[in-house]
Amino acid sequence: MAQVKLLGFWYSPFTHRVEWALKIKGVEYEYIEEDRNNKSPLLLQSNPIHKKTPVLIHNGKPICESMIILEYIDETFEGPSILPKDPYDRALARFWAKFLDDKVAAVVNTFLRKGEEQEKGKEEVCEMLKVLDNELKDNKKFFVGNKFGYADMAANLMGLWLGVFQEASGVALVTSENFPNFYTWRDEYINCSQVKDYLPPRNDELLAFFKSRVQAAAPK
Amino acid sequence: MAQVKLLGFWYSPFTHRVEWALKIKGVEYEYIEEDRNNKSPLLLQSNPIHKKTPVLIHNGKPICESMIILEYIDETFEGPSILPKDPYDRALARFWAKFLDDKVAAVVNTFLRKGEEQEKGKEEVCEMLKVLDNELKDNKKFFVGNKFGYADMAANLMGLWLGVFQEASGVALVTSENFPNFYTWRDEYINCSQVKDYLPPRNDELLAFFKSRVQAAAPK
Repeated sequence: MAQVKLLGFWYSPFTHRVEWALKIKGVEYEYIEEDRNNKSPLLLQSNPIHKKTPVLIHNGKPICESMIILEYIDETFEGPSILPKDPYDRALARFWAKFLDDKVAAVVNTFLRKGEEQEKGKEEVCEMLKVLDNELKDNKKFFVGNKFGYADMAANLMGLWLGVFQEASGVALVTSENFPNFYTWRDEYINCSQVKDYLPPRNDELLAFFKSRVQAAAPK
Repeated sequence: MAQVKLLGFWYSPFTHRVEWALKIKGVEYEYIEEDRNNKSPLLLQSNPIHKKTPVLIHNGKPICESMIILEYIDETFEGPSILPKDPYDRALARFWAKFLDDKVAAVVNTFLRKGEEQEKGKEEVCEMLKVLDNELKDNKKFFVGNKFGYADMAANLMGLWLGVFQEASGVALVTSENFPNFYTWRDEYINCSQVKDYLPPRNDELLAFFKSRVQAAAPK
């Protein structure tokens, strides 16, 4: 039997992407929760360059970076596909996944930082939301084709965590008025079966966790 | 016959990655040089979100982002493979390509900007060089396995352009003493047959071009 371990943080969208892919494929795995203040020797040894989660360990070999892990899972295990089959659709899925991930720092700065960093973050995130709002018009549900997949998994930060961040920080960047298509998409995203089955089970804990992160970032 | 067009800048490492992949695969293509100060309607329409080169247009459909284009080319055309076949090696190649591309802004800031941006850029690039210097020890020639491929193409900014940037700007970040393994790798990189055949033909022009860019960034 292949031995699969996942090192992650329970509150992290990046860890959840990988859990999602493993569940879709029906891969059995051992989940190991990391402590961000005291990372395990296994994590430091498995991802010596970034020292970050998630890390997938398959047959003793570590794979790092959530979207790269998703490609690995798709190429390694049987089961429903994560990336589309057609090369052009695959390129589109990778384009949107990259677009979404290129703005992770800006999202973090917007909700979990203060001052100049936060203002710069907000600007960038609003630019990003404009693009997404346009892309998701006409009640578009999935980024590529009519099947939930790779780019939609990459969108979990915007589809799910953004709402928690807004509530935790009091920064209300998205309303039904300023980004109506994105707002509608997000509502459906959270409620679609592929996401519901995968939602972090502890929504209140998630909110409490990010509230404490916001608090820690507030000026003393 | 498939119709392939490439929109690019002659001086850009990102454009050259795509040309490289097309040449390796033996794909015939029409190269269209863009004007950075007056981008063509075809470019703006093909990459409306980023408005950047390179863009590959295949049978009328645009594909954006150099490393995504490389995956598309590898999946679409016959010929020598660009990514390794083994899923774990593919993940490693993608890891190094992402590692290299995540620092593009820092490299640009180091050599083509001034002041605080430049100092922050230098710090980041030195951190990156430390990692690369360690990775490339024991006279390692290729990032994954013993074949030139995806990650090595992503490394063209560091393998080739960095030297031009250093000469154009006078910022001598890499010497044979501070990053000896990287230095040796770079020397072999520039001289290996896969790179030599692909080197931009106009080295003096490249240097003159980036000298003018450095000049334009200098404080007035």
